[in-house]
Amino acid sequence: MFSHSSHISAFFAPRSIAVVGASPDEAKIGGIIFKNIMFGAARGNIYPVNPNECAIRGIKCFGSVSEIPVSCDLVIIAVRASCVLSALKECVLKKTKAVIVISAGFKETGIEGKIREIELKEAVKGSQTRLLGPNCMGTYDTHSGLNTLFIPESKFTAPKKGRLSVISQSGAVGTAILEYLASHSAGISKFVSYGNRADLDESEILKYLLADRNTDAVLCYIEGLKDGRAFYNAIKAAMQSRSASVKKPVIVLKAGKYAGSSKAALSHTGSMTGDYAVFAAAMRQAGAIPAKTIEDLADLGKAAACFKPRFRAEKPKIAVISNGGGFGVMCADMCLGNGMELAQFSKYTVEGIKKAMPDFAEINNPLDLIGDATKERFEAAIRAVQNDENVDAIAVYLWPLGISLGNGIADVLINARKRASKPLVAGMFGGAHTYSIAEKLERGKIPVYATPRRAMKAIKFLVGLWQ
Amino acid sequence: MFSHSSHISAFFAPRSIAVVGASPDEAKIGGIIFKNIMFGAARGNIYPVNPNECAIRGIKCFGSVSEIPVSCDLVIIAVRASCVLSALKECVLKKTKAVIVISAGFKETGIEGKIREIELKEAVKGSQTRLLGPNCMGTYDTHSGLNTLFIPESKFTAPKKGRLSVISQSGAVGTAILEYLASHSAGISKFVSYGNRADLDESEILKYLLADRNTDAVLCYIEGLKDGRAFYNAIKAAMQSRSASVKKPVIVLKAGKYAGSSKAALSHTGSMTGDYAVFAAAMRQAGAIPAKTIEDLADLGKAAACFKPRFRAEKPKIAVISNGGGFGVMCADMCLGNGMELAQFSKYTVEGIKKAMPDFAEINNPLDLIGDATKERFEAAIRAVQNDENVDAIAVYLWPLGISLGNGIADVLINARKRASKPLVAGMFGGAHTYSIAEKLERGKIPVYATPRRAMKAIKFLVGLWQ
Repeated sequence: MFSHSSHISAFFAPRSIAVVGASPDEAKIGGIIFKNIMFGAARGNIYPVNPNECAIRGIKCFGSVSEIPVSCDLVIIAVRASCVLSALKECVLKKTKAVIVISAGFKETGIEGKIREIELKEAVKGSQTRLLGPNCMGTYDTHSGLNTLFIPESKFTAPKKGRLSVISQSGAVGTAILEYLASHSAGISKFVSYGNRADLDESEILKYLLADRNTDAVLCYIEGLKDGRAFYNAIKAAMQSRSASVKKPVIVLKAGKYAGSSKAALSHTGSMTGDYAVFAAAMRQAGAIPAKTIEDLADLGKAAACFKPRFRAEKPKIAVISNGGGFGVMCADMCLGNGMELAQFSKYTVEGIKKAMPDFAEINNPLDLIGDATKERFEAAIRAVQNDENVDAIAVYLWPLGISLGNGIADVLINARKRASKPLVAGMFGGAHTYSIAEKLERGKIPVYATPRRAMKAIKFLVGLWQ
Repeated sequence: MFSHSSHISAFFAPRSIAVVGASPDEAKIGGIIFKNIMFGAARGNIYPVNPNECAIRGIKCFGSVSEIPVSCDLVIIAVRASCVLSALKECVLKKTKAVIVISAGFKETGIEGKIREIELKEAVKGSQTRLLGPNCMGTYDTHSGLNTLFIPESKFTAPKKGRLSVISQSGAVGTAILEYLASHSAGISKFVSYGNRADLDESEILKYLLADRNTDAVLCYIEGLKDGRAFYNAIKAAMQSRSASVKKPVIVLKAGKYAGSSKAALSHTGSMTGDYAVFAAAMRQAGAIPAKTIEDLADLGKAAACFKPRFRAEKPKIAVISNGGGFGVMCADMCLGNGMELAQFSKYTVEGIKKAMPDFAEINNPLDLIGDATKERFEAAIRAVQNDENVDAIAVYLWPLGISLGNGIADVLINARKRASKPLVAGMFGGAHTYSIAEKLERGKIPVYATPRRAMKAIKFLVGLWQ
């Protein structure tokens, strides 16, 4: 088996691509994939394969993989389950590096499907061809432009280029995460939906991404591990072998925590679920973060897209700033409840803040800038705590409805974020007006969270308290 | 002290209103309030009070409350702290029923403020005047049209008329909740921001709302209770004295859980925080729901705006339907983890679903409608479980990116919701495309949650498992 990274690279940045089952019909899976690849990965040669078509979108169509005059780096197979094996065998003969089988109807269905999947495994065994899937959505790479996802353009907000990678056993969950991150301006590097993992599995993919120079953090959605030890080792090795400055956080969400729900996981991608508590403990020991919900996973992902998390915390001290006192109290609750401390501001910091405040105001942490706070008051307070050595990270919880707070507050925070690498996380809860400011902040690389709880968990992650 | 409901009613539906500190300047608090009242509560007579103006917005201005020829039901005072007392004394002399003091600068600041607050208390003691505030944002009533909030129109999405009421110690937190609920189509009845509660407190307000015929559920944000026993009794009495069909859920979020964070609560609205664990236990015993975060509070509020929650659960049995198998597994996890069961579908239900599914599909609960599910497949499945006596509530977790799922899916769910009173909650996670469907569902009275965890907590509430 070639675990050679050049073979795995072919899943992300192939120089030539064939689509078996390509179609001019955009309502068909092969039609969407072919279109997405054509308009995405402009650098590679593209070969549609469909015996019933002469040309698709003006490109000559081939009757089978064997008829293609070259050996493609990547072949995507999106035909019905019973036709997959013969196409895959042709790829093996042609020494195709990478094959993605999108088609469903394998291990996740009945006995016939299980046999079909064994046949796929046998076909690639000992060959020079690596297989992703079946029953998956393939890969997406913002750097190469490759997009094998069968989601019509009209439904899909393309994520911007970035340094977060996502691995998902479920194509639906994975693409939902991708759509979420895109809508929150979090940049993506690579995405892999691996489905039934007849060959290439989560551990190998993770290992590859932990070595990928375009990836700074990896989010994983998993229903069951093929080889728990290999997955553990992949994380552990990456955490141990590197200096803190190049370590990459791995955040793992595992579904199927209960016996009753794992039955569903079994039929969905055909994998058994293990004991969740054991899994979570193992992840922590390896150095990864087990996420409890899809929101946790995405919340930490957003944080990692904006700041480089630390890997060791020494009693982190947090500054909480708000113009809605109640939000400050809730942030303080969550700060203390998450094992962090409220920073003791230096005299210099207190003086700096006092100058911008009304006479009667007390300078505490959480700092209540009072409901009539202006952007200038925020600017003075944030600048002071950024310069305070007693402060490791800053949470700014905004109440944008405040009478003296204009939209300019977003620029104040974004400029502050540019000024210093100290983690700066924003919180806000509300409706249309509030969301418009949140969007602006996220475009400016400040992660925004609706609740004090979520904001403080993001800070906990960024200051390294998760290890 | 008049706890007479006609006096408290004057805070919501006054027939005549004076605004002390009214101003033509929309950048001033008194300017915003006067404008909001003028364009909101069209039914009452409005009297601006400001010695420096002859008329505001074409309405004759008075130099003081005593100069107004009538006794107003409601007087709103928004002048600087040192000028509040004399205005309040005039109200008492004129037997004004209700006075809202918006002004800050009382108990929440230094010793001078504390003295000023005692003076306000003394002024209304034994009088026919009830006082809300100081240091508050007052009231909002969608039924009467009254709006005393000093939020400019441009920032505020007005909530639609509905049956949820909100009580908040913090004006910022309260209005953020209001803005959130408005943006999620949850209808509001009454809103009260009570601030320092020099006179009228959270217990009396809650009691009033629990008897209010326009209110079906109450959300509370509290930093510290003035009289814990009275608050407990208000809930307990309402829960005991009524039949299940007219009971109203009370959901309470309390901030200031830790010693360190309660210091902030103290300076914010000048109240002490108690022991959180004791508080939460007391709330449960009284029959209320203690919410952990502002999101929990709003999530349950959204649910109560769409369905009437039950007040006693008998092993609730839930149906989970999804076109993204992984989401189904996560919902199953959260269903079991929250003490609920996955329903065993009747034979008739299974047959009904089978007809709409491909041959190879297995009919389980969680039900995986598979990634290529159409709206017709959802329609058949939802109809079947709605008719199944073994199912108490339904969670539909949508993956709108699914290839065969058009926007019509929203109408399928909304029609199903109209067909039956059985709780139907939707889940979805993603970006722009996904959110557009979520918005449509919420307008159709189906609450939508981003995570399986939040969707299942809403169901737990609706089936009555919180008692």
